[in-house]
Amino acid sequence: MTLCIHNAMLEGYASPVSLLVTDGLIERIDPRGARVDQAQCLDARGMTLLPGLVNAHTHAAMTLLRGAGDDMPLMTWLQEKIWPAEARLTEDDVYWGTRLACLEMIRSGTTAFHDGYWHFHAVARAVRDSGMKAAIGLPIVDALGADQGEACKNTAQSVMQEMDRYDPRWIRPVIYPHAIYSVSTETLRWCQRFAEIHDLTLHIHLSETRGEVEHCLKQHGMRPVFYLDRLGLLHQRTLLAHAVFLDDAELDLIAERKVTLVTNPTSNLKLACGGVFPYKRMAKRSIAMGMGTDGAASNNSLDMFQEMKLFSLMQKHTLGDPTALPAQVALQIAMGCHARILGHSGIIAPGEPADLILINTHTPEMTPPLNLHSNLVYAATGHVVDTTIIHGRIVMQNRIVADEDHIRDEVTKRALALTRSPAP
Amino acid sequence: MTLCIHNAMLEGYASPVSLLVTDGLIERIDPRGARVDQAQCLDARGMTLLPGLVNAHTHAAMTLLRGAGDDMPLMTWLQEKIWPAEARLTEDDVYWGTRLACLEMIRSGTTAFHDGYWHFHAVARAVRDSGMKAAIGLPIVDALGADQGEACKNTAQSVMQEMDRYDPRWIRPVIYPHAIYSVSTETLRWCQRFAEIHDLTLHIHLSETRGEVEHCLKQHGMRPVFYLDRLGLLHQRTLLAHAVFLDDAELDLIAERKVTLVTNPTSNLKLACGGVFPYKRMAKRSIAMGMGTDGAASNNSLDMFQEMKLFSLMQKHTLGDPTALPAQVALQIAMGCHARILGHSGIIAPGEPADLILINTHTPEMTPPLNLHSNLVYAATGHVVDTTIIHGRIVMQNRIVADEDHIRDEVTKRALALTRSPAP
Repeated sequence: MTLCIHNAMLEGYASPVSLLVTDGLIERIDPRGARVDQAQCLDARGMTLLPGLVNAHTHAAMTLLRGAGDDMPLMTWLQEKIWPAEARLTEDDVYWGTRLACLEMIRSGTTAFHDGYWHFHAVARAVRDSGMKAAIGLPIVDALGADQGEACKNTAQSVMQEMDRYDPRWIRPVIYPHAIYSVSTETLRWCQRFAEIHDLTLHIHLSETRGEVEHCLKQHGMRPVFYLDRLGLLHQRTLLAHAVFLDDAELDLIAERKVTLVTNPTSNLKLACGGVFPYKRMAKRSIAMGMGTDGAASNNSLDMFQEMKLFSLMQKHTLGDPTALPAQVALQIAMGCHARILGHSGIIAPGEPADLILINTHTPEMTPPLNLHSNLVYAATGHVVDTTIIHGRIVMQNRIVADEDHIRDEVTKRALALTRSPAP
Repeated sequence: MTLCIHNAMLEGYASPVSLLVTDGLIERIDPRGARVDQAQCLDARGMTLLPGLVNAHTHAAMTLLRGAGDDMPLMTWLQEKIWPAEARLTEDDVYWGTRLACLEMIRSGTTAFHDGYWHFHAVARAVRDSGMKAAIGLPIVDALGADQGEACKNTAQSVMQEMDRYDPRWIRPVIYPHAIYSVSTETLRWCQRFAEIHDLTLHIHLSETRGEVEHCLKQHGMRPVFYLDRLGLLHQRTLLAHAVFLDDAELDLIAERKVTLVTNPTSNLKLACGGVFPYKRMAKRSIAMGMGTDGAASNNSLDMFQEMKLFSLMQKHTLGDPTALPAQVALQIAMGCHARILGHSGIIAPGEPADLILINTHTPEMTPPLNLHSNLVYAATGHVVDTTIIHGRIVMQNRIVADEDHIRDEVTKRALALTRSPAP
C-alpha cells in the first residue's frame, strides 16, 4: 500500500512537497513535490500538512450523554443524569457512542486518543471500525466494594488474554485505575503490578478538585502525588489526567519520575473545579504534557482546536501575561510532541507513522495567512481539517467520513432510550 | 418579495412550522408547516430556526491584521505591529477587511453587529455589499491632540450629512468615543451633544483594564462610570464594551441609567486584562447585556458560538459554580434578547425583522438531540449554521456565501502588503 500526498505545504519547506507513505509509515519527503506514479495519489494543493492531533484524555462513549445534564451541580448531575443512564448502557450502546466520538475526532483532526470507559471490546471494535488509533483503558474501580474491584480485575485480565484480536499499531490496552478516591490502596498496588507484568501505560485521574487533595491528605496522610509514588505508580509510563491542584514538591517529584500530565481545560471550567493546570510551573521543570477534551458530557465537544485555544487563553488570563503559552506551544502539546503518547512523535519525518491531517487554509478563518500557528490555534476550529490520514489510510477526505448518517441515527435512537425516565 | 421557509423546527412548536416573510418582516408562522406557492420557498427539513446572533462589539476590518501579532505584550503589539500597519490602511483595505469579517460572521450565524473602525463609508459599503446589518461607529479620539479630535468630529459631521446613501434598516451610525483615556473631557461632552442632536447610540470602551480605572481616578478623581455619568453619557442608548472592572456602586448606577454592557470574553483572556465580566452582579441588577467578539486581531475569531461557550465557562469557573450562566441564557444574550441592539429583539414573531439562521442539527456535534441549547452553546461552533437570512434575504445557503474566494484573495494580498516591513 503506497500513498503519495503531493503539492502539500509543510513547515520548513519553501514550496509544496510530496510525501510518500508505504505500509503506514512515511517513507520520504520530496521537496520538489512530484507525484509518484505507482501510488494512490492525493492532491493537497492549497493545503498544509500537519501531524494528527492526540486527544490524551477522553471518555469517548459519553457522546451518548452529551447535553443530558449541563449547568448542574456535580453530584446532582452524576446521581440524577449520568449514573442512571450509564447503569443501562449496553455493549452496543458503547460501541455506537464511541463511533460517534471517533467520527467527531476524525472530523477535527485527531488521529489517536486515550480512552477510559466500560466495555473494552466495544470501544476497541468502534476504534477499529473507525480506522483510528487508541490506547484504551481497562477501568479499575472499587468504590462500591471489593466485589466491584474483583470484577474489574477479572475483566482486565481476560481482555489481556484476548488482545490478539487487535493490531497493536492501532489498539493498545492501558491500565486505568479511576482515581485515588475511588480505588483502594491494595487495588492501586495491583494495578501497578499489572502494568509491570503486561508492560502497560498507567492512566489515572489526579487532583482535579481541591476536595480530592483534602480527601487524600485525610485518608493517607500525604498529598496525592506522594501517595501514588509510595505505591510505585509514578514512572515514565504514567499519565495523570486533569492535574490541577499540585504543589511545588509534587511537581518536582513528577519531573523526577518523568510522568506525563494531561490538561483538560474546558472540562475544568465547565465543572467549575476551581483551579487551572499549572502550565508555567510544569514547563519550568520540563514536565511532559498532553491535552485532552475529557468526555462529551463535560465539555461537550471533542474538538482539540477549541481545546488548544482555551488552554492558551486560560494561561494568559491566570498568569496575567499575554505572552504565556504561545500558539506554537499549544499546537505542539496537542500534536503529542511533548509526550510520546501511543508512540506518536508529533513529527513529520521518514520512519514515523503517517498519522497526518491536511488543513484547508483557503477558509475565511485562516485568512490572511500571516501566521499559521496563530490562525490554527486562535482563529480556526476543527472544521478547517479537510483530510485525515491514519497510518497511511485516508479516513476523511473533503470532510467526508464513511457511515456518518448511520452513526448519528444509531446514537440518537440509543441516547433517547437511555435518558428516558425509568419505569416506576 | 415574499419568502416561505417551510419544514423548520422552531422552539415552542411540536412539529415543523412554515414561516412567511414579506418585505423583510416575519408575516406569519404556520404551525402546519405548509409551503406558500406564491413565494420563494426554502425547505428547512432537518433544520432548526433561530434568531440571528448579534455581535455587539467588534472592529471588523481588523481581520486584515489577524495573526499579525499574537502572544505579545500589549504595547509591543500596538507599537510594533498594529499601529505601523494601521497607519498605512487605505479606504479600500478597510472595505475588504470588513468584507472578510462579514463573510465570517454570516458563516457563523451573525446577522448584525456593532462596529468601530476608521473609514466609515468603506465599512458601510462593505456591510451593504455583504447584506448584513450594522451599527457603525463614528470614531472619536483625541489622544494625539486637539487636531486629531477636530478631524474626527469633522468626519463624523460630514458622515451624518451623507447618511441618505444608506438604508437605515441595514446601516446606522453610532457615535464612538474610543475610551476615557484617549478622549478629552470636552470631546466626550461633544460626543454626548452629538448623540442627542442626531438621536444616536453612544458606544465606548470602558474599564477593560485596572490601569484604565486607576488612570480615571487619578485624572478625574472618580471611577469611570461616575465620570461618564457626570458628563451625561450614561443613558438607555449607551453601550459600554468590555466592562470588566466595575464596583457595586458603578453597577447600581448602570442599572439605574439602563445602560447596556457588552462582554468580550475571548479578548479579555487573550490580552490578559486580568478580570472577568461581572455577570452575576449584573444579572442581579437586571442590567441589559450584549456579547461581542472584539476584533480579529485580539480574538482571533468572529464566531459568536465560541464566544457563548467561553462566556458561560468563565462564569462557572470564576464563580466556582457549574450552574452559573446556563446555556439558554448565553444564547439569549448572543441573540440580543437582553438589549435591543439595532432594533433586534432576538425573537421570532410576526412583525419582527426576518434576521434568521437555520441550524443543521444533523451533524456529529449536535448529536444526540437531548438538549438544543446545550448542544448549540457547548458542543457546536458557527459551522452548524447552514443558512443565514438577513431582513428576508438569503445571504448564505448550504454554507455558500457569494464572492468568498474573491474576498479572501483581496484580503490576503492587502494583509501581506500591510505587514511587510516598511522601507528603511
